[in-house]
Amino acid sequence: MQFDLIDTLWVLLAAMLVFWMNLGFACVETGLARSKNAVNILSKNFIVFAISSLGFMLLGWGLMFGGDNPLIGTKHLWILGGDNSFYDGTLTATVPFWAKFFFQLVFCGTAATIVSGAVAERVKYISFIIFSLVLTLFIYPVVGHWVWGGGWLANLGFMDFAGDTVVHSLGGWAALSGAIILGARHGKYGRDGKPRAIPGHNLSLAVIGLFVLWLGWFGFNPGSTMSFQNPGDVAHILMTTNTAAIAAVITSTAVSWIFIGKPDLGMTINGCLAGLVAITGGAQAITVPGAMAVGAVAGIIVVFAVLKFDRWRVDDPVGATSVHLCCGVFGTLCIGLFAKEGVTTLSAVNGLFYGGGAGQLGIQALGTVAVGAFVFIASSVVWIILKKTIGIRVTLREELEGLDIGEHGNSAYPDFALAAPAGGTPDDGGALAEAPAAAGTAREAAIPVETRTVTGAKLTKVTIIANQNKYTRLQAALDELGITGITVTNVLGYGMQRGHVEYYRGAPVEARLLPKVQVDVVISKIPMQTLVETVRNALYTGNVGDGKIFLYDVEDVVKVRTGQTGYDALQDEE
Amino acid sequence: MQFDLIDTLWVLLAAMLVFWMNLGFACVETGLARSKNAVNILSKNFIVFAISSLGFMLLGWGLMFGGDNPLIGTKHLWILGGDNSFYDGTLTATVPFWAKFFFQLVFCGTAATIVSGAVAERVKYISFIIFSLVLTLFIYPVVGHWVWGGGWLANLGFMDFAGDTVVHSLGGWAALSGAIILGARHGKYGRDGKPRAIPGHNLSLAVIGLFVLWLGWFGFNPGSTMSFQNPGDVAHILMTTNTAAIAAVITSTAVSWIFIGKPDLGMTINGCLAGLVAITGGAQAITVPGAMAVGAVAGIIVVFAVLKFDRWRVDDPVGATSVHLCCGVFGTLCIGLFAKEGVTTLSAVNGLFYGGGAGQLGIQALGTVAVGAFVFIASSVVWIILKKTIGIRVTLREELEGLDIGEHGNSAYPDFALAAPAGGTPDDGGALAEAPAAAGTAREAAIPVETRTVTGAKLTKVTIIANQNKYTRLQAALDELGITGITVTNVLGYGMQRGHVEYYRGAPVEARLLPKVQVDVVISKIPMQTLVETVRNALYTGNVGDGKIFLYDVEDVVKVRTGQTGYDALQDEE
Amino acid sequence: MQFDLIDTLWVLLAAMLVFWMNLGFACVETGLARSKNAVNILSKNFIVFAISSLGFMLLGWGLMFGGDNPLIGTKHLWILGGDNSFYDGTLTATVPFWAKFFFQLVFCGTAATIVSGAVAERVKYISFIIFSLVLTLFIYPVVGHWVWGGGWLANLGFMDFAGDTVVHSLGGWAALSGAIILGARHGKYGRDGKPRAIPGHNLSLAVIGLFVLWLGWFGFNPGSTMSFQNPGDVAHILMTTNTAAIAAVITSTAVSWIFIGKPDLGMTINGCLAGLVAITGGAQAITVPGAMAVGAVAGIIVVFAVLKFDRWRVDDPVGATSVHLCCGVFGTLCIGLFAKEGVTTLSAVNGLFYGGGAGQLGIQALGTVAVGAFVFIASSVVWIILKKTIGIRVTLREELEGLDIGEHGNSAYPDFALAAPAGGTPDDGGALAEAPAAAGTAREAAIPVETRTVTGAKLTKVTIIANQNKYTRLQAALDELGITGITVTNVLGYGMQRGHVEYYRGAPVEARLLPKVQVDVVISKIPMQTLVETVRNALYTGNVGDGKIFLYDVEDVVKVRTGQTGYDALQDEE
Repeated sequence: MQFDLIDTLWVLLAAMLVFWMNLGFACVETGLARSKNAVNILSKNFIVFAISSLGFMLLGWGLMFGGDNPLIGTKHLWILGGDNSFYDGTLTATVPFWAKFFFQLVFCGTAATIVSGAVAERVKYISFIIFSLVLTLFIYPVVGHWVWGGGWLANLGFMDFAGDTVVHSLGGWAALSGAIILGARHGKYGRDGKPRAIPGHNLSLAVIGLFVLWLGWFGFNPGSTMSFQNPGDVAHILMTTNTAAIAAVITSTAVSWIFIGKPDLGMTINGCLAGLVAITGGAQAITVPGAMAVGAVAGIIVVFAVLKFDRWRVDDPVGATSVHLCCGVFGTLCIGLFAKEGVTTLSAVNGLFYGGGAGQLGIQALGTVAVGAFVFIASSVVWIILKKTIGIRVTLREELEGLDIGEHGNSAYPDFALAAPAGGTPDDGGALAEAPAAAGTAREAAIPVETRTVTGAKLTKVTIIANQNKYTRLQAALDELGITGITVTNVLGYGMQRGHVEYYRGAPVEARLLPKVQVDVVISKIPMQTLVETVRNALYTGNVGDGKIFLYDVEDVVKVRTGQTGYDALQDEE
Repeated sequence: MQFDLIDTLWVLLAAMLVFWMNLGFACVETGLARSKNAVNILSKNFIVFAISSLGFMLLGWGLMFGGDNPLIGTKHLWILGGDNSFYDGTLTATVPFWAKFFFQLVFCGTAATIVSGAVAERVKYISFIIFSLVLTLFIYPVVGHWVWGGGWLANLGFMDFAGDTVVHSLGGWAALSGAIILGARHGKYGRDGKPRAIPGHNLSLAVIGLFVLWLGWFGFNPGSTMSFQNPGDVAHILMTTNTAAIAAVITSTAVSWIFIGKPDLGMTINGCLAGLVAITGGAQAITVPGAMAVGAVAGIIVVFAVLKFDRWRVDDPVGATSVHLCCGVFGTLCIGLFAKEGVTTLSAVNGLFYGGGAGQLGIQALGTVAVGAFVFIASSVVWIILKKTIGIRVTLREELEGLDIGEHGNSAYPDFALAAPAGGTPDDGGALAEAPAAAGTAREAAIPVETRTVTGAKLTKVTIIANQNKYTRLQAALDELGITGITVTNVLGYGMQRGHVEYYRGAPVEARLLPKVQVDVVISKIPMQTLVETVRNALYTGNVGDGKIFLYDVEDVVKVRTGQTGYDALQDEE
Repeated sequence: MQFDLIDTLWVLLAAMLVFWMNLGFACVETGLARSKNAVNILSKNFIVFAISSLGFMLLGWGLMFGGDNPLIGTKHLWILGGDNSFYDGTLTATVPFWAKFFFQLVFCGTAATIVSGAVAERVKYISFIIFSLVLTLFIYPVVGHWVWGGGWLANLGFMDFAGDTVVHSLGGWAALSGAIILGARHGKYGRDGKPRAIPGHNLSLAVIGLFVLWLGWFGFNPGSTMSFQNPGDVAHILMTTNTAAIAAVITSTAVSWIFIGKPDLGMTINGCLAGLVAITGGAQAITVPGAMAVGAVAGIIVVFAVLKFDRWRVDDPVGATSVHLCCGVFGTLCIGLFAKEGVTTLSAVNGLFYGGGAGQLGIQALGTVAVGAFVFIASSVVWIILKKTIGIRVTLREELEGLDIGEHGNSAYPDFALAAPAGGTPDDGGALAEAPAAAGTAREAAIPVETRTVTGAKLTKVTIIANQNKYTRLQAALDELGITGITVTNVLGYGMQRGHVEYYRGAPVEARLLPKVQVDVVISKIPMQTLVETVRNALYTGNVGDGKIFLYDVEDVVKVRTGQTGYDALQDEE
């Protein structure tokens, strides 16, 4: 075997860039979701590439590239056992088998990862894993065979250079099917049926993801030449890719500025991706000005698609359907419109706008519909089977608490104080609170407030302000007194006391507001003097800054569950 | 056209790495600014590449490379309409046009993005977009033509291998002009005129950006060979680039350790970039030990430049002028000092230190001054025209609230509780509070405290501690009672109650402090019993952990705006 | 010199990818540590590459590649002075010297950065820098010489393709030595001796790091061909690398799901790295199915290694020893088991599983032990010398407050409110509080509570709720009254008042809970009326939302340090 060195190098480097898009999807999707689901989304986007790799090795490659049956590949179905000596003569013979394989593998992984965003924040982890395996074992390879593996669409002349249909609209249809069958996230729609914003938790992360994807696309599209023998082709494809992206950045920003009132960053991100998706199918056949037009329209489409899907009650947290489905379809059709013969050595057809008639557009439409129908139906069958068996949606409690706790037992940002309950969806609480009520534990059954059983037992609130690093000692001391109901608040203390001095680029950071902890306890029978001495012993070091104790009278206290008041309300494990 | 495959591959890969620097700038600048401006900075760094691409396509390329007029290019002024068949014979003919074009485009984008950092946290989004368009349509291409397009500085023998002057000091002069004309951020200077630290909000993000930039520089400098026919040249340039960077990392860390007292991470980041900038102009002409010297000095220069600009009241939030302007000028001059003939095939001149005399140094100085004067004046004219027309600075309120809200209507991190008012600049509040006073609403006019109108109406403070997911229900219940003045605090409850168990790498996370919400209401006429029952109905589930209600006596309450007290103070819409 | 263009391009690109791994390590390690140490870890991972570059230039290269003495290189010991004309004939002559040098340099940097994670959160910055310098000046080059520089292990036939022993287990041994000599972090082990979880602060950051490392590994392993003449070899190595990684992702996730109860994301991250490490030594000699087996086992090993090291009281915050040491050793031995002749042109030996007998396995074991003994002893000597001289551990106070303040004077995320004291280790506070007690300031000495000195002086608590931007004015006004003990809490105010409207992707974000600041002051002698008027003057603008003032009776206040009560307790500088 005499491989071409530069072709192989190019294919491997392009494949690495496409592999890298896994990080891009992980960051965009996680950044556009809530912090309580970050671990889950990161995990999904992480494992989906592993699962795709496995699925594509086990069966996918063979179904996609194994022979010229018009419907499905039939050879090389278990290529995991293969090695370097295996080589399918139907492939471009200038690159080694594993180079070609890895390049195809990362494309397969991209299709699977598109689904992740649309089903985010409520899908069960195990069900998503199984769906991804089926997608990459079977659904993706079948479509890939039709278009790229010598199947019936290829024979008809259907054009899809780097995967507007094979990767993007395919992923988009699977995503749409999942989003519909799963239903909307709790709190996404108010009682009035109108969509509510559920803001993403980290737009810095989303922008990191966007740029990773943009860079990855320079492997995705130009790399789809799978050859570097015509460097002018590669350069042209790089330029059309970039031009569509920047045009879409500008139009999506402008459209959101005009129609939403502000240049929404989330829309600009979606817009950029929309432009990249839209040019993917025809990057080798469309001129640079044509790419600008395609990108500009895609940037407009995606803004309205996001708004429309929201209104149609298809809850897609990151806009995956708007970006990949809508613009994947749009891009596929654009080939029939904008293709120009001779733009590169890979372009031999004229689209409608260049006098080629509507023939190619018709073929593009046919392929779009055929792939859409197959993928939507096949995906729906898989989602529904999963729903009927192991279930596809986490419990309401898990969804409200966040999938990170329920599914993974982790928190993504444990050191940071969260803005909940203000953050996230306003109705989160309501949804959960209503659930038990509907299930029969009538709220009317709440036991009435008892009369005070220990009349005259004075209630005193003790508020302790101390340095945060004293907290554990203090808690231990209160434990020994048998005090269990403590409320702890992170506060800032202002005073003359000097804290540590922080510097930033040579200038001192003024920090007279120092972090303190405020501990509130309400006591009844414990003598106040005992408590004060205990607290003092716990906090005392003899240095300035040992803290203060404040005492307040409490009129009464009521325990919600039992209705007990006064001393009794303080006596148990809550 | 017979293109060289490996040259084209190298140019395209290097261009991708330089494109990637857009992410680097976005992360460094956002990380070194405050969280309330993160969306704005991310947006600026995102759209600036789109705008640059457009500007360079429309006019920039032609002005830069269109013919050999000494002052300005005159051909190919509208190359967006061009396609692969267009090729300017004056260019190295070994790579396709679009490859060369994209490589030049990403350099142009870099110059524009440098400005972004210096004007951060107060510039109007639309004005920044317009300035960037003018910079890339006109200012950058003119200087580019002088140095790289066959203009008068090129004819004089001015050397600037990868853009110390064309990209970095150019971007730096435009940034300086913008920073001066905009003025300092509110709160940057105290009443004593001394600079105050305004710490960046996310140093992890800044370090991500730094490494992205460092990697990008391996395309920026070595890629500027635009050929791979002499691989020894490329390897040498890669080594000088890396060596200058690591030397500057070490010296900037050491200098900040010695002079500021601690190894400040922000200074190390600026130092690394300073070393990279300083070697950019002469990476092909300076030896590896020479690069170490250049980088070491740059790492020192940048620390003092940051401190000096601060003192000179040039408020540059991310140190863009210190890095790109100071070290860009320094690097340009270093060529006249450190250049050594034959270091690579691209080096034909000896600098002062290698016996070449001061001639080259003089030319370098002349070019530096000429470019500086042109760019500073041209940029200032643009900024001033924008200031006089649409304005270049956001309102004081927008600046204090953060540009994210005012300009974009988004928050970058909505799930996270912010440390404000402690974070950021201590004077933020003062600035805004004084503004209306200055405008005539004299504070002396504050209506005096009224006597209590409803004498004897007892005031009671009700403090409710509950699970956070109950909040919405509770709020709805209080709404129905007509209670509108609620204070909500995120607290931690400590008790015997078991919460969810989190694990981290197999070990349980101890979490006896569970997140709770504390709701404080002060009531007067509403019977306490009614309130207590309402709250209990809202919170009751019958499970442990339903919460507690505490009642306290309130001596009085005063409404600041009207001076009303007691019952009346509670009666309205605040 | 006639260099091969494509070989050089490949080596440079692969080296850039390996350089890029510095960011990966920085992100993984920082993300898996606490936020209070983020600046320190970022700084360590940043400067370690600079130090490695310096060390390897000064002496390392020569010790590693300077001639064929079996124990140590003896030539080219000061190659910093070298330039392009220097070329060692013993190297593959197809790439320029600096290309080869940079490739080796980034490998050296990787070994050094592995140590960083294991010693995180308590090592002194300066001591870490010195250790890294010694490691890269001497320890790494000696081992490198043995294996890759023509030393005694190379002569024995020891195989280590891309550095399972030279880089990973070497880094792991140095890390283990450091972790043991430093001792565990405070709070890692409870009084029962059992390990406690200290969760990482940012799993998004850790996943970014993971993908950066994964991508970097595509340079690390395939690039170790240092030639592109056999592209099938490169493609094969890329596939074995990826296959081991995905197998380990799946097994580590499954194992943590089964044995810990949940699919822990930290374990999946460690698992992926474990797979990548394990295949590093034999990526060119193992088949793709073999790589899947190696990766699958590594993914299991690492989970139990993390749990075991925790139990053995080796506190390695990020699992560096489990990943790099355990799987580096495992991978080195796997070569003796899984190697298959002819898998690539670089594989000439059969391992035990392919009928090659146990000979190679024995050599692999010998090399593993020899390198382990040398590195562990040498590293321990360095750590111990540092411990005896300048010390290697920060003070207890610095550790508890975070190294960011103590070592760098910076905070990584100053804008964000932290969840401390709940976050981090529960015993943090206790450790510090006990320290002074143990040192003799007996807590029993706490002065008893005094009787009230100013009898009858009424104490009133004033609670002010206002907009956050009013805080500075308010503080200034209270300052003038001489009030210094202020407690500030960030709260949320709910009411009818309209705040700014935020949008997110076209839908309004409901934000009736607006951020407010609550300021609590307890006053005694200052007339309440004076205080109220002062506060009103500070807050008054005449607009809705000027805030409210609440007054409460205080029974008493105790100052912890002095035991003073009432008026006296309020009178000083705390």
